[in-house]
Amino acid sequence: MVEQYLAAPAIATTAAGQTAPIQVGVLGFGGLGQAASRVLAQKQEMRWVAAADQQGFVYNATGLNADACITTYRDRGSLGYLAAGGSLSPDSIAALIAQAPTVEGYFLALPNLPNTFMASVAQQFIQAGWRGVLVDAMKRTSAVEQLLDLADDLRSAGITYMTGCGATPGLLTAAAALAAQSYAEVHQVKITFGVGIANWEAYRATVREDIGHLPGYSVEQARQMTDAEVAALLDRTNGILTLENMEHADDIMLELAGICGRDRVTVGGVVDTRNPKKPLSTNVQVTGRTFEGKISTHTFTLGDETSMAANVCGPAFGYLKAGIQLHRRGIHGLFTAAEVMPQFVR
Amino acid sequence: MVEQYLAAPAIATTAAGQTAPIQVGVLGFGGLGQAASRVLAQKQEMRWVAAADQQGFVYNATGLNADACITTYRDRGSLGYLAAGGSLSPDSIAALIAQAPTVEGYFLALPNLPNTFMASVAQQFIQAGWRGVLVDAMKRTSAVEQLLDLADDLRSAGITYMTGCGATPGLLTAAAALAAQSYAEVHQVKITFGVGIANWEAYRATVREDIGHLPGYSVEQARQMTDAEVAALLDRTNGILTLENMEHADDIMLELAGICGRDRVTVGGVVDTRNPKKPLSTNVQVTGRTFEGKISTHTFTLGDETSMAANVCGPAFGYLKAGIQLHRRGIHGLFTAAEVMPQFVR
Repeated sequence: MVEQYLAAPAIATTAAGQTAPIQVGVLGFGGLGQAASRVLAQKQEMRWVAAADQQGFVYNATGLNADACITTYRDRGSLGYLAAGGSLSPDSIAALIAQAPTVEGYFLALPNLPNTFMASVAQQFIQAGWRGVLVDAMKRTSAVEQLLDLADDLRSAGITYMTGCGATPGLLTAAAALAAQSYAEVHQVKITFGVGIANWEAYRATVREDIGHLPGYSVEQARQMTDAEVAALLDRTNGILTLENMEHADDIMLELAGICGRDRVTVGGVVDTRNPKKPLSTNVQVTGRTFEGKISTHTFTLGDETSMAANVCGPAFGYLKAGIQLHRRGIHGLFTAAEVMPQFVR
Repeated sequence: MVEQYLAAPAIATTAAGQTAPIQVGVLGFGGLGQAASRVLAQKQEMRWVAAADQQGFVYNATGLNADACITTYRDRGSLGYLAAGGSLSPDSIAALIAQAPTVEGYFLALPNLPNTFMASVAQQFIQAGWRGVLVDAMKRTSAVEQLLDLADDLRSAGITYMTGCGATPGLLTAAAALAAQSYAEVHQVKITFGVGIANWEAYRATVREDIGHLPGYSVEQARQMTDAEVAALLDRTNGILTLENMEHADDIMLELAGICGRDRVTVGGVVDTRNPKKPLSTNVQVTGRTFEGKISTHTFTLGDETSMAANVCGPAFGYLKAGIQLHRRGIHGLFTAAEVMPQFVR
């Protein structure tokens, strides 16, 4: 094994020589957070031990049960009601940080509403003196810019923060960064996604974020829409949201990685909120000029059977593992999905 | 910029605050080495200063001219005849290592013939006490295994060695590692390449390596074939080499990265030695099971207009840049293309 970089000597091993699982927390327990708990349930290398929602949190260093947590959250509205390790708290994230010393990394499965929310969460971790890895799956360029402003503070605090590490930005941004390698110059990166969900109410925050990208809507307006207003909008569009020239952080992430100016990057897609089948195959096309002067296009296409949850949560934990490796080597600060190879989590 | 990891404080800056180009060498000056020199001619962040062939070497810290080097090599058979910095030497690699102190990284654009050659070159660097980054674009699993045996020695020597960093293994292996992120379990990685070259004699060593994969041929047999024998074989196949179940290091690289067992990885392709048009589009398909139990396939397809040279040399220097960042942080040893994100070289 190529262990000198990947693991040894920093990864803790048990007496038997087995690598101890990474203790992981999930902030936010809507559709994405719940999916994350199910992803983690299949991982040997990570153990899910902590989670927070708006009203409370749960922490149990021996591990949490996804089914029990999802049932409690759905029935009673908060993980804080769980008998084993649950606590209600009006300041659930701060309370969890203080009371979950074994957590090495958190996936921030939070809706970034308002647009400053993720940066404010990062500041909570800095102020708490917490050291570890944070991963987000944020979408907007302006939200990533707020984190860039925190890069020095994160580094000084001993936090390794991986931003834009979902599907797009995330998996597709990294694929674009990889595809760029064949070119002397990158002319265009075009991301087109198809999302199909059976029922918009399973992803209320995500759908509102998408609505915020529609002409005539701001993020704040979308956030303040009632469920009835969202349903009425979706009735008018037959459940389809068509999104063009979205403000998506793929652009700034590829610019920061030196691959192309952000104006060369476009993101759009179609969301069907009434059908789990994707309306089109999600793909990224990277067009550039080779050193011989040829213009060509590489294409990375996701299989239609992979859900948004699989394409977001898988990469998020892959980047969390990569972030843990950086953190254990003393490498702190802000990183994007375009700079670091996510590591496969068994 | 996310500079704390990418660059500062280790990258040397000039008085004007400009980042100094990385001084790079190329070992081997056949088709691949010559293409590498043309790729480097378009890079601001790297300066090509050193090269060696079988009979000699050239070193000039102010930079080498690709046209002049290619002309001299073609006309006289060795870079050693160049007036500015050329020297003939029966032991050209050792001589170059000793006389090129400013080189921070080498691309080993050498045919791995015999199959132990690349490992023996790595040992030369170790024995010389050289510290820096080495990148290869080797193909065979058994050749990468020899380097794995050297991993400890490379680390102790202060060398950061990036192996399997061409097109396949390399770009396509990394794409497979990325695609794997959507899955809880990876079932199959299938790499299919198409290569078109106008004239096999521009890539004599590469074509011989391919012949070594054909049923009934060993690497050693292919190496010992005369040009007339190669031409006769190609006459019988109409210039086409069809390769199946090749011994390709993509398998061990994905296994080392924890993505799937090597038996799940297959590599095959078609090489047309008489037509620069690719006989099929090079692609990698990654099939797996998501956490929800769905089976799906992601596909990464290279544009047909990108040549083998572009798809090998681009990634090789992208990994060289990534290797330099690791090396400047004191991270040494052996890495594969599946573990590290290549960095775009401007």
